[in-house]
Amino acid sequence: MRAAVYTAAGDVDVIRIEHRPDPEPGPRQVRVRVRASALNRADLLQRRGRYAAPPGWPQDIPGLEYAGEVEALGADVARWGVGDQVMGLVGGGGQAERVVVHEDEAMPVPHGLTLTDAAAIPEAFLTGYDALLTRGQLRAGERVLIHAVASGVGTAAAQIAHRLGATVLGTSRSAAKLARAREYGLDLGIDTSSAGFRDAVREPVDLILDVLGGGAFAVNLAVLGPHGRLVMLGFLTGSRADADLDVVLRKRLTIVGTVMRTRSLPERALLAQEFAERMLPLFIAREEEPAALRPVVGLVLPMTELAAAHRAMEASETFGKVVLVWS
Amino acid sequence: MRAAVYTAAGDVDVIRIEHRPDPEPGPRQVRVRVRASALNRADLLQRRGRYAAPPGWPQDIPGLEYAGEVEALGADVARWGVGDQVMGLVGGGGQAERVVVHEDEAMPVPHGLTLTDAAAIPEAFLTGYDALLTRGQLRAGERVLIHAVASGVGTAAAQIAHRLGATVLGTSRSAAKLARAREYGLDLGIDTSSAGFRDAVREPVDLILDVLGGGAFAVNLAVLGPHGRLVMLGFLTGSRADADLDVVLRKRLTIVGTVMRTRSLPERALLAQEFAERMLPLFIAREEEPAALRPVVGLVLPMTELAAAHRAMEASETFGKVVLVWS
Repeated sequence: MRAAVYTAAGDVDVIRIEHRPDPEPGPRQVRVRVRASALNRADLLQRRGRYAAPPGWPQDIPGLEYAGEVEALGADVARWGVGDQVMGLVGGGGQAERVVVHEDEAMPVPHGLTLTDAAAIPEAFLTGYDALLTRGQLRAGERVLIHAVASGVGTAAAQIAHRLGATVLGTSRSAAKLARAREYGLDLGIDTSSAGFRDAVREPVDLILDVLGGGAFAVNLAVLGPHGRLVMLGFLTGSRADADLDVVLRKRLTIVGTVMRTRSLPERALLAQEFAERMLPLFIAREEEPAALRPVVGLVLPMTELAAAHRAMEASETFGKVVLVWS
Repeated sequence: MRAAVYTAAGDVDVIRIEHRPDPEPGPRQVRVRVRASALNRADLLQRRGRYAAPPGWPQDIPGLEYAGEVEALGADVARWGVGDQVMGLVGGGGQAERVVVHEDEAMPVPHGLTLTDAAAIPEAFLTGYDALLTRGQLRAGERVLIHAVASGVGTAAAQIAHRLGATVLGTSRSAAKLARAREYGLDLGIDTSSAGFRDAVREPVDLILDVLGGGAFAVNLAVLGPHGRLVMLGFLTGSRADADLDVVLRKRLTIVGTVMRTRSLPERALLAQEFAERMLPLFIAREEEPAALRPVVGLVLPMTELAAAHRAMEASETFGKVVLVWS
């Protein structure tokens, strides 16, 4: 099979397409013929040598998600048959033509979606769902602030939060992206290209999905209301924080750090199945009613142009997800 | 009635015993003849003018807990009769001869305990229970680190955690207090009089009950294991923190700030009733079996010596609770 490979740690010139042996499915595993995979910031960190793949996953083949067809079954597989369209998360190796995954962590591709669209779902929507619901305990009527709302996770979380009846605030350094994000449930866009978000938030928020990290920590705590929750997903502004924790007690805040990639198989399987049951039906349009949730594909490139995809994401030129397709 | 009063913000010389009108119970309220009240660090902060009583409670009469007998009933009281022995939390005013409380937030004094013992229960045990269970999600077999384990909350939390099947680590700046705390469920005492606690913890812990705050924040994060929880209850070392939050994501930590005093009546009532049901039976000795939970009364003084009680707590001379009694 062909696979995208990082030949070393470095700039985009370390990316190559190489040939590798096809992986073989073990018991309760399926082999998927990958048609599309999306790009994540974790892929960029890994390319720079700053985020190794967890044990048990390909170390030099990047890619944290996939969509494709089941093409071979290991022993005792009950959930899938050859030809089924599936999508899901992997700890690494998603940007190869074939991946092997446990049958319990694959999800069905919602009816009516292309595999290119489907590849934009797993990381963004599972992360958003888990952060909003499981970690963040979001309830209808609450106010949620989503940093980098024009990103893959941001546009997914905005849609889920909107669907759940929350008021959605979001930040971006691009007014044009904020305008687009309104199509995905954003109620109040905050342009942080020239000023911070503190004053623009106006009323306190109940929940923050944060990819900014240390640089935003103190202001995040400041804009949370009583019993507010700060779910930390990334460190775009670094991880060092200097803050007065007095408000954490006074407002009885909860700060939760979360990361998808290092989770155990049972955890990933549980999340995939819960998400498949509760959220996947919302990707399907009904008569006279558009789908409540839509994958947000901002850019599609052939896998052979993975380096260009990295550059586009590093330059923050993208809206929603960047999807790579095998042809 | 007589009441302890802070005549101004300042040192212990602002404490007086004065006469005040008896409070009258409104609908669903009871008036309690207070026999004993315990001292809390919040009382010391309030005396210094740094922690005002929440609205609706006496502003100049300190005291966050009480034990005594019901002596008058407001309209529609169903839960209590005159003469019943009760104990509980108040937002202020506990160090008076009479307090008025909603019937739903009073708890029965466990059979066999004196009112002096009972006064040592509410703040310490409700805080410990809420921090360990509700906020901290403690499970049997986990390792919990309790800072200031010789304090009222510390000795209460150690007993509850031990009873729940956790391994209990605790810090104190006094080796003698650590030795005494072993009687209350402490498994590993860490003397922080001359060194920090980081190395002494050895294996990661699952839960930390922290009253130290900013000065211990980074090391607390460091000694937590995967999915660890840091429950913040106070700021003995200040509230300013400088830390690398990378571990919050990497280990998927949860940081929860909590405070008892500003809670709403429904919240306090819910906690009191849950605690009464699940924990109060454990204060009663059975045949051949000592009680699993014991109030820890380190010092008993008449209310007229409240200033001496403040000085003892400020000098960290006390073990467990300091109880003030009316005579």
